[in-house]
Amino acid sequence: METMTPQKPSGTTCPPPTRWGICSAGKISHDFLVALRTLPAEEHLAVAVAARDLSRAQQYAQLHGVARAYGSYEELARDPEVDVVYVGTVNPQHLPDTLLFLRARKAVLVEKPMGISAREAKEMAAAAREAGVFLMEGFWTRFFPAWKRLKALVDEGALGECRVLQGALAFPLRSVERVREPSLAGGALLDLGGYALQMASALLGRGCPPLRLRAEGCLHPSGVDETVTVTLQYEGGKQAAMTVSMDAKMPGGVVLGGTRGWVEIPSHLNCPTELIWEGKREVFPLPPPAEPLNFPNSTGLRYEAQHVRECLLKGLTESPVMPLAESELIAEMMDEARRQVGAVGPGGTAP
Amino acid sequence: METMTPQKPSGTTCPPPTRWGICSAGKISHDFLVALRTLPAEEHLAVAVAARDLSRAQQYAQLHGVARAYGSYEELARDPEVDVVYVGTVNPQHLPDTLLFLRARKAVLVEKPMGISAREAKEMAAAAREAGVFLMEGFWTRFFPAWKRLKALVDEGALGECRVLQGALAFPLRSVERVREPSLAGGALLDLGGYALQMASALLGRGCPPLRLRAEGCLHPSGVDETVTVTLQYEGGKQAAMTVSMDAKMPGGVVLGGTRGWVEIPSHLNCPTELIWEGKREVFPLPPPAEPLNFPNSTGLRYEAQHVRECLLKGLTESPVMPLAESELIAEMMDEARRQVGAVGPGGTAP
Repeated sequence: METMTPQKPSGTTCPPPTRWGICSAGKISHDFLVALRTLPAEEHLAVAVAARDLSRAQQYAQLHGVARAYGSYEELARDPEVDVVYVGTVNPQHLPDTLLFLRARKAVLVEKPMGISAREAKEMAAAAREAGVFLMEGFWTRFFPAWKRLKALVDEGALGECRVLQGALAFPLRSVERVREPSLAGGALLDLGGYALQMASALLGRGCPPLRLRAEGCLHPSGVDETVTVTLQYEGGKQAAMTVSMDAKMPGGVVLGGTRGWVEIPSHLNCPTELIWEGKREVFPLPPPAEPLNFPNSTGLRYEAQHVRECLLKGLTESPVMPLAESELIAEMMDEARRQVGAVGPGGTAP
Repeated sequence: METMTPQKPSGTTCPPPTRWGICSAGKISHDFLVALRTLPAEEHLAVAVAARDLSRAQQYAQLHGVARAYGSYEELARDPEVDVVYVGTVNPQHLPDTLLFLRARKAVLVEKPMGISAREAKEMAAAAREAGVFLMEGFWTRFFPAWKRLKALVDEGALGECRVLQGALAFPLRSVERVREPSLAGGALLDLGGYALQMASALLGRGCPPLRLRAEGCLHPSGVDETVTVTLQYEGGKQAAMTVSMDAKMPGGVVLGGTRGWVEIPSHLNCPTELIWEGKREVFPLPPPAEPLNFPNSTGLRYEAQHVRECLLKGLTESPVMPLAESELIAEMMDEARRQVGAVGPGGTAP
């Protein structure tokens, strides 16, 4: 279960709070700040927020009680009181922004996708390894209590041998510029597909590549991928079929079938708060947000923030739950899926 | 909604009962007989049951109150009081048995798959058309009240434009000889796949072929297909991804996502008794069976029996809901899917 405070030997002083810097004043950064505020202030403290537009950074600083606002990411990188930076910029900026902070020896939690291609993901991972600085891709899913419960059922063999993973994550996002535009690395795969692929990787592949990946889909008129099903075949007859779409409303559920039983996340496979096991619904409620959220269940970003703190307190340079090698693998799978459907990105069609 | 009695002008006499002959004394025939008994006897009457083994036919006749038992299908075909034959034999027998009854000018309701290949399905459809005799493949799904409710929501545009269909039907059937053996035309696709494909055909294709069909899967050591995902791309960016498996337990649910909303069948997509629409569960309970059933929800076979009666009373030679051309199309899709995964059937690999 979730440990609310890092373990420490009795009699020692409490470890200091983890001091967060926030890179960008976009919608997801807002939600991340709200999520941080659901955690004890003696453990998590947002100390600075930076945006290209200083006034937006100032708005966020005021709203969320952050001490310092910067009009450039470079200033944030130079702030000596920042331990770790949350990078919440648009997809094509994840690489340059992450490199900026890694070079300043700041730990980084970067929103998914870690890069818009495997080449970018590898460059970021290499930079982190070389610098010996913590880097993690923000697959928050893996830190939700509902996910941990599902994972524990799998690991203790409650389902027998896991065989089939099937789910669909879809939102009507055609009107959202960020998702629609090739120049912003839009498309259903880069926006939603990573969630599906990381789930298959965690549950069926356990970090190993699939034997085969097949993607079938159709494109938006802009050239980005609109609806895509990725089928993954793993060793031992294990198969995942995950559909993502920016053109439909769906509950976002996923079901994992084993030889002895199944477990289902009825909605929001990317940020689950409930699951169904042996016909019974188990609920893992989120703390209420202090401010309205932009995205569903966003106070659940607290769990990945807690995990990052735990890693940093242990002196780790990468997460054992979401390691860099798996981010690289997921980026490779994403490249291949986008290539197969002919998706167009900032540099033309996918590699 | 379901009409329990065929419409007739007031003042006329009631139409006579539909007199059913049952071909085979297997598990599904048992369930079909139980289902018939949930309907008014003045409308549906099982008058004869035939099996290769007379004693089994006699057992069924006694258990279900059927007047005559035969030790051969030929005798059933000659029974002048049989209006329509339910063919519940194993998959490779569907063709010869159906042809036998069609040639005897008996209407036929044949269990799915109509044939074990498109060639067989076409031969059966041609024989029915030539004889001018009613033939329908037993896709009972399409006659369930829950399915009709879902279809009505789609047809009235409640979901907006339908875009994504995704579901998985899976049972641990590796130990079942009928499903495991190539000689019996086993495999997940022929056993379960038709349900998935007919659903995509009804909801997205509306009887038209998909633009593309892609199948990805793995084989059982016997050579039959074990777990398969079929992805179907239809005109207008509509996509279905349906997984079937004989090697996992899954709830068997399906979700249809449109541009404005989604509707979900949480379990048993092949014989649904509930659906979720706008977050609310709607339940369509089945009548209780008079005898224990072999398969889930089998009293729901009553709905297809009612539909057959309605067709016969109208003098139709095929069903407008499950027409022969669509059975041929589904058989072609099944052939293609089995060919792509390299499934082995009675005559070697799929055509």
